[in-house]
Amino acid sequence: MKAEIIAVGTEILLGDIVNTNSQYVAKRLKDLGIFVYYQTVAGDNEERLYEAYKLAFKRADLVIAIGGLGPTKDDLTKETAFKLFNKKAVLDEGSFEKIKNYFSCTKRKITEGTKKQAYFPKDAVILKNNHGTAPGCAIEDKGKTMILLPGPPKEMVPMFEESVVPYLKKYSDCILVSKVLRIFGIGEGQIVEKIDDIIESQTNPTVASYAKENEATLRITAKAGSKEEADSLISLMEKKIRGRIGKYIYGEGDEPIENVLGRLLIEKKLKISAAESCTGGLLSAKIINYPGISESFMEGCVTYTNEAKMRRLGVRKETIEKYGAVSSQTAKEMAEGIAKGAETDIGVSTTGNAGPFGSEDKDVGLVYIGLYIRGKVEAKEFHFSGDRQKVRNRAVMEAIFWILNEIKQL
Amino acid sequence: MKAEIIAVGTEILLGDIVNTNSQYVAKRLKDLGIFVYYQTVAGDNEERLYEAYKLAFKRADLVIAIGGLGPTKDDLTKETAFKLFNKKAVLDEGSFEKIKNYFSCTKRKITEGTKKQAYFPKDAVILKNNHGTAPGCAIEDKGKTMILLPGPPKEMVPMFEESVVPYLKKYSDCILVSKVLRIFGIGEGQIVEKIDDIIESQTNPTVASYAKENEATLRITAKAGSKEEADSLISLMEKKIRGRIGKYIYGEGDEPIENVLGRLLIEKKLKISAAESCTGGLLSAKIINYPGISESFMEGCVTYTNEAKMRRLGVRKETIEKYGAVSSQTAKEMAEGIAKGAETDIGVSTTGNAGPFGSEDKDVGLVYIGLYIRGKVEAKEFHFSGDRQKVRNRAVMEAIFWILNEIKQL
Repeated sequence: MKAEIIAVGTEILLGDIVNTNSQYVAKRLKDLGIFVYYQTVAGDNEERLYEAYKLAFKRADLVIAIGGLGPTKDDLTKETAFKLFNKKAVLDEGSFEKIKNYFSCTKRKITEGTKKQAYFPKDAVILKNNHGTAPGCAIEDKGKTMILLPGPPKEMVPMFEESVVPYLKKYSDCILVSKVLRIFGIGEGQIVEKIDDIIESQTNPTVASYAKENEATLRITAKAGSKEEADSLISLMEKKIRGRIGKYIYGEGDEPIENVLGRLLIEKKLKISAAESCTGGLLSAKIINYPGISESFMEGCVTYTNEAKMRRLGVRKETIEKYGAVSSQTAKEMAEGIAKGAETDIGVSTTGNAGPFGSEDKDVGLVYIGLYIRGKVEAKEFHFSGDRQKVRNRAVMEAIFWILNEIKQL
Repeated sequence: MKAEIIAVGTEILLGDIVNTNSQYVAKRLKDLGIFVYYQTVAGDNEERLYEAYKLAFKRADLVIAIGGLGPTKDDLTKETAFKLFNKKAVLDEGSFEKIKNYFSCTKRKITEGTKKQAYFPKDAVILKNNHGTAPGCAIEDKGKTMILLPGPPKEMVPMFEESVVPYLKKYSDCILVSKVLRIFGIGEGQIVEKIDDIIESQTNPTVASYAKENEATLRITAKAGSKEEADSLISLMEKKIRGRIGKYIYGEGDEPIENVLGRLLIEKKLKISAAESCTGGLLSAKIINYPGISESFMEGCVTYTNEAKMRRLGVRKETIEKYGAVSSQTAKEMAEGIAKGAETDIGVSTTGNAGPFGSEDKDVGLVYIGLYIRGKVEAKEFHFSGDRQKVRNRAVMEAIFWILNEIKQL
């Protein structure tokens, strides 16, 4: 089966935003064994959009259009599809109810444009949007299929996984099963180097690497006649990969690192607290992402000034004077200070220079992470590159990865 | 003049890398007043590439193809252009010298494929590559122009600025100037409703709305003979828009809300601290995004438990017992407590239920924000929808927007 991706939106056409949606969909179609020969970007213009649709269906059997399902007059993706397929627009009561609900929850007034989000071509399969107001849909006609998805990646990506992947499976004569391994502490390039021969020599299952900010994933995809058969192919491959880079694999699937940590903390009945300087609250915020973490996370301090480090955490004045606020000594006292103050098993701390300006002896990107666990305290020194935000995100990931590896052994 | 961008490369087509080149070129063409109606991605396949070229020239006068100028057999962009324009390939001695030089400097042996990088269509304008081995070129024929650029962004971007921009100036008879207004506290749909007549009736400048997570932007774009003329068109339009939705406009251009806040705090010499429950450090982390904020931000507390709220912030036990931890009373005591403890002008607090589970009387999405400013303390109640992360991000934005509006008047 041949597919084509059309990203719709003047903001992409004119370069205001980068087209990550087409990349995502292209990659996932590849995993599903569906070929993409062209990708197109068209603006919010009905005539040109119509031409793009027509052309795409000349070249492909499946067309996925992303974006332009919003409430404004500029949002024309669905309206143009009505025209192309010569289908009547029908109000989907279920979708309209959901939209009304969303608006009443947020105490906002529903607009006329919003209602248009609940209209679909007659006989279309509606793809639910659990992360926004605009549902998507799939239209089938004379052997051609069109799938319409909303533009915001936070809505498009889960909708693709939850609805489009199962929908597309019927076009595949066998089943595809994927497993994602989540990796931290090693770059995508290094991963590929370490398992290059595996990636190159394998056709089933295939192994594909994806670089994400501060982490990487490997997706193992097996094609087989049954789920059991696919699972066993995946399991063999996973074993091989873990043999090479197992110590960097922290999790699986969609579960972010903070959930792996949260689960383990609660399972092991460990209490944790955090004292942050350079990460400024980001570490606490990340840990707290995990629902139910209130059982384990007790409190955090963002001690940006030296005074706050001393007053809130009991860091000694002499330590700061002798070694500086950005030092392993300070990091250790911060970690111990918060753990003792909050009466937790674990105390984690960060202190560093996230930039943009370095000081005499503290380069931008120098970060110390302190970790106190039941009476034992250590600190690690890191040198990160990138801008302020990158340095801080990286520090947060390193801290969580470190805690994770330590508590596994408790 | 109408232009089309073709990104060439199977790695983009299959989603292995994100297509930042097309974004860059689109943006710059817009600045030059050159319209882009379509962008295309094609793989390293001569036949399909040829079709993409032909189609692009049907729709546009200028085609910019990016990628596929490398030394391998897969690199077909130039070879396909030879065919399309029916031009002979000629060795450019200057380019070949530069390539040989580059190889001898890096002590590598020159390959046959590398030599192909120095061949160009007869009469082409050669665009030097000062950051790699593959030069680009511009081909003109019968009123149509094709520009070929290398794929690595580190080569493409400087080449575009150094060679393509000066080359294209001759096609531009006017300039385009844009201004972005950043908006919070009102949805994209509501904005459009309030200024629908302006958006509909205007052709110069044009006004376009974009929804982002938790905020929206309006882009005003004017076309004129000079920058001054364009600026004055924009300024008139901006005035009109501000007359309708001015109170929601918090900033301009690329500046995120925390930078607007950070700048204002430092300008007004105000000190700030934060006490967070449901936002778990995210508010501090956001405020701290602004470089140089250490002059103003003193400290933050993530007081997740009732004990921490009392111990760290001095929230009274009776308050929590009578009104609950999620209440305007607790929010106010938290804000006042952190401000007094950290000795700051401003103390901001959050307490709420970010989900996923509600309690008897505290629905998911119920958040109180407290704000203490120089002796005066207030709290506001919010009902947010969405998942845990969304509720927390929204609370952070509301808190910052509130502080911003209050301190403007100080």
